[in-house]
Amino acid sequence: MGLSIGVVGATGAVGRKMLEILKERNVAIDKLRVFASARTAGEKLDFNGQEVTVELLTEDVMKDQFDYLLFSAGGSVSEKYAPIAAEAGNIVIDNSSQWRMTEGVPLIVPEVNAHVLKGYQGIIANPNCSTIQMMVALAPLHRQYGIKKIVVSTYQAVSGSGHKAIVELAEQIKDEAYPSNVYPKRIAANCIPHIDVFNENGFTKEELKMVFETQKILEDNTIEVNATTVRIPVYYGHSESIYLELKEAPGIEEVKALLEEAPGVVVMDNPENNHYPTPLEVADTDDTYVGRIRKDLYNPNALSLWVVADNLRKGAATNAVQIIEAIESMK
Amino acid sequence: MGLSIGVVGATGAVGRKMLEILKERNVAIDKLRVFASARTAGEKLDFNGQEVTVELLTEDVMKDQFDYLLFSAGGSVSEKYAPIAAEAGNIVIDNSSQWRMTEGVPLIVPEVNAHVLKGYQGIIANPNCSTIQMMVALAPLHRQYGIKKIVVSTYQAVSGSGHKAIVELAEQIKDEAYPSNVYPKRIAANCIPHIDVFNENGFTKEELKMVFETQKILEDNTIEVNATTVRIPVYYGHSESIYLELKEAPGIEEVKALLEEAPGVVVMDNPENNHYPTPLEVADTDDTYVGRIRKDLYNPNALSLWVVADNLRKGAATNAVQIIEAIESMK
Repeated sequence: MGLSIGVVGATGAVGRKMLEILKERNVAIDKLRVFASARTAGEKLDFNGQEVTVELLTEDVMKDQFDYLLFSAGGSVSEKYAPIAAEAGNIVIDNSSQWRMTEGVPLIVPEVNAHVLKGYQGIIANPNCSTIQMMVALAPLHRQYGIKKIVVSTYQAVSGSGHKAIVELAEQIKDEAYPSNVYPKRIAANCIPHIDVFNENGFTKEELKMVFETQKILEDNTIEVNATTVRIPVYYGHSESIYLELKEAPGIEEVKALLEEAPGVVVMDNPENNHYPTPLEVADTDDTYVGRIRKDLYNPNALSLWVVADNLRKGAATNAVQIIEAIESMK
Repeated sequence: MGLSIGVVGATGAVGRKMLEILKERNVAIDKLRVFASARTAGEKLDFNGQEVTVELLTEDVMKDQFDYLLFSAGGSVSEKYAPIAAEAGNIVIDNSSQWRMTEGVPLIVPEVNAHVLKGYQGIIANPNCSTIQMMVALAPLHRQYGIKKIVVSTYQAVSGSGHKAIVELAEQIKDEAYPSNVYPKRIAANCIPHIDVFNENGFTKEELKMVFETQKILEDNTIEVNATTVRIPVYYGHSESIYLELKEAPGIEEVKALLEEAPGVVVMDNPENNHYPTPLEVADTDDTYVGRIRKDLYNPNALSLWVVADNLRKGAATNAVQIIEAIESMK
């Protein structure tokens, strides 16, 4: 007997990726339903060679019984509909930021904290794309040494802003006059240190997500995170330059060994042979790639690394589907 | 009576920019000579509406008398010819990395340490592009508070690798099959954490330049720098995400005031109105732009900022010409 799964926001960039990954990973689905707003309801989507009609999202359909409902339709849709679905007994895996920091809502990177899910029913939050890949890479180091401080600068792909942003970059590259609708400035041949809105403390909401989601996922509010998040003209794959202060001095070979053994991590670190990850190379895969691992020249407890992952996959859709797999494996 | 100036490597991207900026800044030139290798010697260049013939670079011509010789022809040319020119009594301003760390060779960012030049004759080194803009922004903060540690991640434009790299990016954007000759991987729709060669400590030479040039320019070997230098698909303008630990707690308004008064700095920091620098906006200007100034959430002595400048101008040619201006103003 397979699973009954619903995807809310199925026609967006992440929603479509969720369908792709459900199929790719051979999730045993008995019944798949897809939901969206009136704008795209009625459209037909392909799932595994079968045509699926997009149903209109309503309060009523959320009360139907599902094993899992995957949400990727923005914060306001999740705010309204996820509690209705959860109230009806459904497990909701929400890709928006709406419920991530809510007390009692598990915020899950399966390689890191799937244990939190044991016996849980209700809304589960999928972390921010930039947080997920950082957690996959850093959790093994936190367990071994304890993290004191993270200074991270990101190099984020436009696909994180949806299909419209991919079009904006592609068109602006060809046409100097193509307007900037998605981004506040031209993204072609540029980089923009501005993702999500600014908080009065000078950090963006995207940067603050990396602070507070990290503390929640690693279950340690003493970890200090300083983030600068930057959009660059790349289509797929977020990169992160991470400086890390640990509570004790790590051996660099031990760090590499820990990462090589870590679930979901691929170490690419032979720089003399140009062996380090770049977004173009790792896009369309599900792992988190780590390279440029090196000790700080001054602080014996500090090291630097470079972390890359596909933001639509591990940073969103794959992580959500892995949450289903984690729960199923506990049954 | 105007100056006698020679430009060595005049047909390269930075060499041409030097000619452009000598003219733009109305440097009083009586005699201009331009030099290059046999490959381009004999070509005609335009300077201020006058045709100038590229002369072949030889040991002999370097022994002629110049007020200033600007070198931008790579490390090996500077290694061989700069000492000959200096021995003949000429002031050499060298844009290569060849002499930067040599004891006794001044490494100059005019806004920061022009005082070192007083009465000096011989080779003067122009710092690395990424270092120059960081120094313009950070020197005023070092003087006021003392810098303990800098963690910097760069977003560097392809023009830093010369004209061939500009062509490589432009062609790869249009053509998926266009080969990567300048860079080890495709730069279009990608970012590459690899600039210059790797050292055995895991840092690149570009990253180590930012470490040791900073210490030399700020005359303080206790400053700790941790750098990650990354090439991104931008044509002109380097950006830097900088995390800074100071020796005392700065007031954020005081920091902004210090930077607003600092020579060569333009503060662009009203993020709610999308007012922060990006490379596309500040390219083709001579200043160093600072935005996203904010205090760390945890360490009262730490702050973050975002620094952007045109790498061919302030990062190379403008800085070199400003060194001439600084020496002339001391006369």
